[in-house]
Amino acid sequence: MKRIITVSRQFGSGGRTIAKGVAERLGMAYYDKELIKKVAEKTGFSDEYIEKNGEYAPSKSFFSLASSFIGAPRVMGGMSAYDYLWVVQRNAILEIVEKEPCVIVGRCADYILKDRQDCLNVFIHAPMEARAERIVRLYGESEKKPEERLKDKDTKRAINYKHFTGGTWGDSRNYDLCLNSETFGIERCIEMIIEAAKL
Amino acid sequence: MKRIITVSRQFGSGGRTIAKGVAERLGMAYYDKELIKKVAEKTGFSDEYIEKNGEYAPSKSFFSLASSFIGAPRVMGGMSAYDYLWVVQRNAILEIVEKEPCVIVGRCADYILKDRQDCLNVFIHAPMEARAERIVRLYGESEKKPEERLKDKDTKRAINYKHFTGGTWGDSRNYDLCLNSETFGIERCIEMIIEAAKL
Repeated sequence: MKRIITVSRQFGSGGRTIAKGVAERLGMAYYDKELIKKVAEKTGFSDEYIEKNGEYAPSKSFFSLASSFIGAPRVMGGMSAYDYLWVVQRNAILEIVEKEPCVIVGRCADYILKDRQDCLNVFIHAPMEARAERIVRLYGESEKKPEERLKDKDTKRAINYKHFTGGTWGDSRNYDLCLNSETFGIERCIEMIIEAAKL
Repeated sequence: MKRIITVSRQFGSGGRTIAKGVAERLGMAYYDKELIKKVAEKTGFSDEYIEKNGEYAPSKSFFSLASSFIGAPRVMGGMSAYDYLWVVQRNAILEIVEKEPCVIVGRCADYILKDRQDCLNVFIHAPMEARAERIVRLYGESEKKPEERLKDKDTKRAINYKHFTGGTWGDSRNYDLCLNSETFGIERCIEMIIEAAKL
């Protein structure tokens, strides 16, 4: 079985529910982006952590920059708080996967772990209408139309992915397996990922 | 079982072999782009065919244009021979799928059939190195480096897809299922598609 499964997903596609289902059935730890952020914040804002994980930094100069802001995390100088969080979260992900087999949702984990042979990268998507129906059912109505909320999130995730990876979010070639969750439904997606994770 | 399976693929990914394997095991007819072209040429250049299938045309005006060239297929006027072939091949695909359950490779069949509920759209890709190794093994060396041949083909297919569908070739959201054939190997890809085609 692959030791690590990353799940990237369109908002409203059920990707998170699917990832959670996979983790539960396989008895693997589960990290979504909030959990990674928590790990990163807990560990990442200490000098020791940065020191210890410096070698994992995207580039020495990039990381030196980050290091120089320790102790002054609110004044980021040349690097935005957003970029800084990326570095810390990236290191958190690299630490998490050393610790235990796990399913990781979002945070460009597919890109961060792309050279690992023990990692299966999955992308979950669904057509606009199916996602709109899902987010209204799960999160209720809001001022904005669901279609607008979805387009907003899609755009933000695509920009985020491009910014940090240089790649195109949702391009099938970034992933081992891409599934349309409307075609297959949540349950079958879980089964297909578990099957795909077998070596 | 889905009645129709379309397989789009990167050159050298083994997509055609996979498609053929799926068709054989499921006892479905198999059409690759050469076969579709043959069907289109046989049926498409007759007035009757065009007349009968006029209603399937992408747009009335587009098709009227095509119709006006019948009898003078080498003089395409405002429409290139390439665009004309697209219209005829598109109609051939729509005819083929009415006739029998089948697996169709290439020719933007995923797009042409995207509104059908009985169709599973698959995309097969693989990393450059794996594809380079495969094309040299299958087709031998040529003057151009395999990486260049691959980039060439990738670019041509992407341009072709954009031209005729307006979409992005290889974007996971065009397909129900995308597989990295290097991760899973030919045999497992065949099995995964057959599993996915079950209703």
